Order: sequence, then structure tokens, then C-alpha cells
Amino acid sequence: MGSAIAELRELGAELADLGGIGAVLHWDQQTMMPPRGSAVRAERMATLERISHERLTSERTGEMIRAARTELADGPVDSIDAGVVAELERQYEKDRRVPVELAVEIARAASEGFELWQAAREASDFTLFAPALERNLRLTRDYIACFEARDDPYDIVLDDFAPGMRTAAVEPVFAALKAELSPLIRELAGRELDDSCLSVHYPVEGQRRLVGQVLALMGFEDAGWRLDDSTHPFSTSLGVGDVRLTTRYSAEYFPMSLYGGMHECGHGLYDAGIAPELQRTPLASIRSMVMHESQSRLWENIVGRSRAFVGAITPLVVGEAGGALDGVGPDRLFRAVNAIRTQPIRVEADEATYPLHVILRFELERELLSGALAVADLPAVWNQRMLDYLGVEVTSDADGVLQDVHWSALLFGYFPTYALGSLVAAQLWDAARLELPDIDAQLARAELTPLREWLRENVHRHGSRYSDTELLERVVGGGIDVRPFVGYLTDKLGDVY
Amino acid sequence: MGSAIAELRELGAELADLGGIGAVLHWDQQTMMPPRGSAVRAERMATLERISHERLTSERTGEMIRAARTELADGPVDSIDAGVVAELERQYEKDRRVPVELAVEIARAASEGFELWQAAREASDFTLFAPALERNLRLTRDYIACFEARDDPYDIVLDDFAPGMRTAAVEPVFAALKAELSPLIRELAGRELDDSCLSVHYPVEGQRRLVGQVLALMGFEDAGWRLDDSTHPFSTSLGVGDVRLTTRYSAEYFPMSLYGGMHECGHGLYDAGIAPELQRTPLASIRSMVMHESQSRLWENIVGRSRAFVGAITPLVVGEAGGALDGVGPDRLFRAVNAIRTQPIRVEADEATYPLHVILRFELERELLSGALAVADLPAVWNQRMLDYLGVEVTSDADGVLQDVHWSALLFGYFPTYALGSLVAAQLWDAARLELPDIDAQLARAELTPLREWLRENVHRHGSRYSDTELLERVVGGGIDVRPFVGYLTDKLGDVY
Repeated sequence: MGSAIAELRELGAELADLGGIGAVLHWDQQTMMPPRGSAVRAERMATLERISHERLTSERTGEMIRAARTELADGPVDSIDAGVVAELERQYEKDRRVPVELAVEIARAASEGFELWQAAREASDFTLFAPALERNLRLTRDYIACFEARDDPYDIVLDDFAPGMRTAAVEPVFAALKAELSPLIRELAGRELDDSCLSVHYPVEGQRRLVGQVLALMGFEDAGWRLDDSTHPFSTSLGVGDVRLTTRYSAEYFPMSLYGGMHECGHGLYDAGIAPELQRTPLASIRSMVMHESQSRLWENIVGRSRAFVGAITPLVVGEAGGALDGVGPDRLFRAVNAIRTQPIRVEADEATYPLHVILRFELERELLSGALAVADLPAVWNQRMLDYLGVEVTSDADGVLQDVHWSALLFGYFPTYALGSLVAAQLWDAARLELPDIDAQLARAELTPLREWLRENVHRHGSRYSDTELLERVVGGGIDVRPFVGYLTDKLGDVY
Repeated sequence: MGSAIAELRELGAELADLGGIGAVLHWDQQTMMPPRGSAVRAERMATLERISHERLTSERTGEMIRAARTELADGPVDSIDAGVVAELERQYEKDRRVPVELAVEIARAASEGFELWQAAREASDFTLFAPALERNLRLTRDYIACFEARDDPYDIVLDDFAPGMRTAAVEPVFAALKAELSPLIRELAGRELDDSCLSVHYPVEGQRRLVGQVLALMGFEDAGWRLDDSTHPFSTSLGVGDVRLTTRYSAEYFPMSLYGGMHECGHGLYDAGIAPELQRTPLASIRSMVMHESQSRLWENIVGRSRAFVGAITPLVVGEAGGALDGVGPDRLFRAVNAIRTQPIRVEADEATYPLHVILRFELERELLSGALAVADLPAVWNQRMLDYLGVEVTSDADGVLQDVHWSALLFGYFPTYALGSLVAAQLWDAARLELPDIDAQLARAELTPLREWLRENVHRHGSRYSDTELLERVVGGGIDVRPFVGYLTDKLGDVY
């Protein structure tokens, strides 16, 4: 191993440590920190960001990257060393264009914005959050301006969550999705389907036991995982053997905690499955939220809402409900958890309406960033489009424009990855079924290990060694494709309705 | 403000942030982290330590300190700027003598040692911990060797927890304490005193409510504080508005959680009371564990076990006990919580035996560091001296040599501050009584605000602006003194027995 490579691996390890430390601070802030701690926490986050930024973007890093390229010239192109250098170079080329003051201000604004969003959401009053959103948009425009112009300014932020993805590639995919899903939703939303069993009073303690048991089937182990409560469910990996999930509970709607938990556990399995030899390198952190979201949505929806697995867990679901679900059988539960629900909350959306929630946000954040839409007008426009796309009347900011954390934390460019993740999930599912012919029977026995191991082998263990394009080529033999998702969904909804 | 001072204040703010971040990692490790996360956490801690160490000990820091001294020459000697520069200089002069590799190895060993200690304690098997202790002693000897020889090598580590304190000054204080306390204990330990009301079955949920109510009287507020469980109770401040305490619960011995909670809350009040203008400076962290411990022990013992305050909380203590304490009155409770208890656990010791537990550790850690005592012989020697000093037979490693976390985390030099803190607590109490003539009546009404505000004004708000010597001179008009403690204790035990 050459000396420049060795030095870059050291730098990579340090940056991985700083990233992991940031993840602890973030997790703590969202789950444990008393509210008055937020101002100081924002300073801590900003300092951490400044140190990471300085270390990554130093002149020395540039020199080492150039020297490492020479050292690597005669080696295999897909060695871990080559991957580490390439990933550091990608990050270096991005971050060095961003002045440290801006990077620090963004980190601070994200931490402060989160607190303001929480308060605004609590009060269901968008005007409390509007100034933070204005600032976050300004900072994001400043961030975009650091880079050479591309086809679309949005490409810059999209690339942060889906490296290599272009806006011009997302638009036709979303147009096709909208064209396929809108008539499907129109047709089915009017049909009678009794999903009243989802709205029974289900004691939260019973839900905790239910979620615990289902996550254990997926691979959650107390020795290396935690599950906590938070307003906005999330998953984070603080390192090998320390995966943290959160979910939230409503006594009147138990699918929120169950499927939220499975969703986050899907993320957690990805992080937990990264190969040991990639640990403390930049490849041990998943850069593509498209791939990450494919995992969470695969577990939540394709597994979690399948006829086979719902059948397997019906006794658990009924058993922990304190009598409220007595007499409910697998078929009724399966159909209820797959019902088309035209309602305002993205994270509670069914699989068919979900992409439209995402497309709405994709449109709105592009308009906000370009200035075509003013912050003050956002709630009205949001509500109007919810009516247009889904026929949903939004009655409060909390259930409308304030429902998601992302814009508070400057995560513009993140939303599209959710819908793209659904598409990739269906593609991976098709590939897995070919190699696991017994999968339906396994799900019907709540036997999730074969699928998890297949995903680990084909997806998880690689960490960020491959781009989405490369990884998809390896596993499904092509790029992102709308058809498997639409086919999967049409089949299932045909079974449900 | 000159430019060197400004730069040092920036550095101080960054180091304060890194210290606060380390405190989050530490708190999380002790309260939340799944066990398998420990290896990675040790790496994160080591990286954080390396970055702090490098920033503090850079040549640039030395230059800035020299330049700042010139800038400060014409200003007031007790300005905050002067304090910041002096404290950074003190830390710089200490840390620059320690090679970064050693500092990092110590941080890693502390994190790993903690995990090994926890496992050994669980198994009550000292041999599982012995290799970590060997390593920690070797690293501490290496650390001591970085400095010029003083009267006593132990001075180097003692100074880390009690800046400016010398071993030669501690020895006569401890000798005097031993001489005063040994006959007192011998005389009283044999006397009949019914403390059976402490060993009733007291439901943990009731204890949680009791501790919550008592801590609220002290000033604990949910908006800025947390109380959690941990094996070894501790307190840490993660910054303004984010004070974290832990305690532990035994259903068969409720004073552990009650007085453990008051003890840690005493620490927390100190951190919470530091003046806003010192925040994000090196003065916003209390360097002297003697002063810190004076606060925890003042609240735990002098307030918490006073006849007046015990009387005030007796209805709470009885009320949350689920019937187990029905009929127990204030006098019986007061006498029970002050009974001399010759038993093996330091943190459960009464005020008279407590200093002897500390003196034992002070002796043993000096002998371990000098090599006069071999690690393998430690449990036997520990047990023998417990018998000699307190007449206590130790029946397990968990209740003997493995009971304290300190040696696992290389906190050699820390123990003496506990007993010195008791002495200072009594000195501060005497001073407070002069200025708060109604204090007994206030305690009898559970009215703790006047004392807390007196302490904030006279001690807390100053942070680390003054040395112990300077601060004690300001508040009590002299240095550390055994007599107020012995006088206070003799008076109280006279009332109890």
C-alpha cells in the first residue's frame, strides 16, 4: 500500500469517526436531548462540521489524491483502496467548492431549523417556521451557486442524496409514475374496502411488544440495536454493533408504529450488513438514499404488506391488541393494510398514493429554490395540489406543509429518492424471487433470514463501493425502471380489491 | 480585544465544543449504547481526543499564548480574557508534554476498560479486569513520566482533578481525618440504632417518583435536565440547558436512588449555575473535582440527611413506598439515614465511614502506580484493609475491588477529591449559615432556593475562573480545613445517637 493511499485511508477513518460522532449527536438531539439544549447543540454540530470540512478539503488532501491516483495506476480498479480514493475524491471535489463558513452555517441552520420546525409543528403554525425556511432556501441557493452550472441547479442537491442522478432523468420517471398511478388511484379510491380494523384502539404497550417481535424476525438484536421513540422516525448507524431505530406510536392507528418500525429496520439492516473490511472507510456509509430507501420500502411494503407475511403475523397483531382485533383474520388484515387511502400524511400513505406525495414535494422544492414559489404562498399551494393530485383536503399545517422534517434540516433534493427507492425495491424483489423460489412460503412462515441474507450478499455488504448504476447493473441487469413497481402494485391491488 | 486573545477564545470555544461532544459520547455509552457498539465507540473517542490534543498543543497555540500575555499586560488581571488565556496555558503546558499517541491510547483504553470493567463486575471476577488494569497503570505511569519529577509522582495525576493540589498536602489532611473518624466509628458502630426502615421493599416506580419530586425541589427541570439509569451514577453537563444525571435503583434499599440522585443533582446544579458569559470558554467546565464534589456532598449529606430536610420530605418518602413505610416518622427516618453503617460499598457509605473508603483507594492506587502493590495481589489487600479500617468482610469482587468505575477509565488521582470535597462542603455550609440565618427553617419547609442561589452566587457562577485556593479564600477566608467537617459530623451524630 503506497503512502498516499495509506494517508488517505487514515483521513477516511477520521472522517468516518467524525461522521459517526455527528450521528450520535443527531440521534441524541432527536430522541433524548432536553429542549433547552438545542442552542448549544447547534454550536457543537457546527464545530464538528467545520473540522470535518477543513480536514477533507485541505490542500494536503488534494495532493494525496493526485499521488494516490499514480500509486493505484497498476492495481485492480475495483480494489477497496481504489474505492476509498475515488469516494474521497468525489467528496473532496464537492466539498472544496463550499466555503467553510457556508458549510458551518448550513450545519448550524439545520440544527436550529429542526428545533423551530418542531415548535411550529406542535403549534401547527407554518408562520413560525417560515423564517427558518427562508434562511434554509437562501443557504441552499448559496450552496448550489458554489458549483458550475449544470442542466438544472437542482442537480447539485439531488446529487448529494443520489450521487450521479440528474433531474432530467427523474422527470420522465416521475411523469410515467404519475401517468400509471393516477388512473389506478381514481379507479380504486372509490371502491368499498373495510379497513376499520386499522383504527381500533390498540394499546401502545401492545404495539411496542408487536413491533419488538416483528423486528426480531427481521434481525434486530438487543445487543447491537436500539429502538426508541421520536417525532419523525429515522434510522442511523453509529458504527458496527450500534444501529438505532426510532418509530412513533398512535393508540388509534397501529400500522404507523408497525410499518414505521419495519421501514426503519430495513434501513438498519442495510447499515448492519456492510462488510467488515469497509468499516472506518468512506465506503461504510451509504451515499445513495435511493438504495437506502429501496431497502426500507422493500421490507415495509413488499414484505410487510404481502399476503404471505401478513398471514404469518396476524396472530401476533391480534394477540397484542388487547382484544380490539379479536376475530380479525389474515385476509381482512392483508386487504386493510393495502387499502388505497387518500389522506394527507406521506409516511402513512399506501404504496400507490405514496409516489404522488413525493412528486408534490419534488415539484414544490424545485419551485421554492428557483424562486417561482414564495415561502409565504407555500401552504396554500401545498393544500391546492394535495386536492388536485389526491383529492385530499388538508386542514392544518401540521398535517400539511409541516409534516416532514426535511426542509427544516436543509435536506432539499432528498424527497425524490423515496419514490425512486420504491422502484428499485420492486426491481430487487423480482431479482430475489428468481434466486429464492421458496420466498412466498418462507414469508408465510415468517422466515425472513433467506431474503435478508440475499440482500446482504447482493446489496448491503458492498456499502458505497458501487454507484447505483453499477450496483443495479450487477443485481438486476439494468437501470431504474418503473415497470416492475407498477407490475407488482397492479398485481397486489388486483388481489386486494 | 487583541488578535491573539481573539484567536485563543476561538480555540477555547472549539475545545469546549469538542469536550461537550465527548460528554455526549460518554453519556450515551453509559446509558444508551448497545453493548456491541463499544469497539467502534472507543475509536470515535480516540479520534476526538486526538483532534482536541492536536488543536490544543499546536505550535500556533504556544505562539498565541505568548502574544496574548503581551496583549493582556495592561488589562485587569481577573478579566475573563485573562482567565481564558491562563486556563488554556495551564492545559497547553500539561498536554503538550504528552505525545498524541499516548493521549489517544489513553482515550481508547478508557473506553475499552470501561466495557471490560462492566463485564468483570457483572461476573464479579477481578481476573477478567486485571489485564485492563495492568494496561491502564502502565499508560498512567507513561503519562506521569511525560512530566518533570515533582515531590511525588502522584502529584501529576492528582493535579488533573485538583489543579494545584499536592500529595504532600493531602497526606496530613487524610491522617487527621483518620485520627478523628476511627475512634468515632469504633464508638458508634457498636451502638444500637434501628435503621431497618431503609431495607423495606420499596417499589422502584415509587422511588422514581420520589427522586423526581426531591430533585424538582432542588431545581431540576424537565426542559433542561434528564435523569436516567446507569450502573455507576454520574452527572454530566452537555452544555447550557442540557444537564444529565443518572442514578440507580434497588427495590430493597431506597436511599441508594434518593441520595444518589441528590448527589448527582448537586453536581448538576454546579454546571447549570455557571455564568452565561463563561459559556464556550475553558472556564465553563469545572476543573476541580474537589469543588465539584463539595457541591454533590453538600446536597446529598448536609442538606439531604439534615433533621430539617428529612422532616420535610418524610411524607413524600412514606407516601411513595407503597405502604412499606407506613407509620415511620421523621425522627426515625432521620436517624436511620445517618446511622453508621460499616459495609463494603463506598457510594452507600455514611458520612463518617466514607472518608475511610476514600483513603483506602488513595493508598492502594499510589501503591499500584509505584509498583509496591502487584495487580494480582490487589483483591486480597483490598479485602484485608477493609477489615482493618472498617471491620468489614468483603465477600465478592463486585462488592469489593470492582465496585468503582474509576480505575477502568484511568481516573487515578480522582478518589482523594471525594473526601476533600466533604471537607469543603462543611466549610461552605458554615459560611452559608452565617449569611442565611433562616436556613434550618427553610430546609424544614423543603425550601431549597435560598441555599441554591447562595451557592450559585458564591461558587457556581465563577466556573473555573478561580483556583480552589482563591475561591475558598473568597468564600470561607482560608484553605481546606478538617475541623468544620469534624465539628458538623460530631454534632449530627450526637443528635442521631
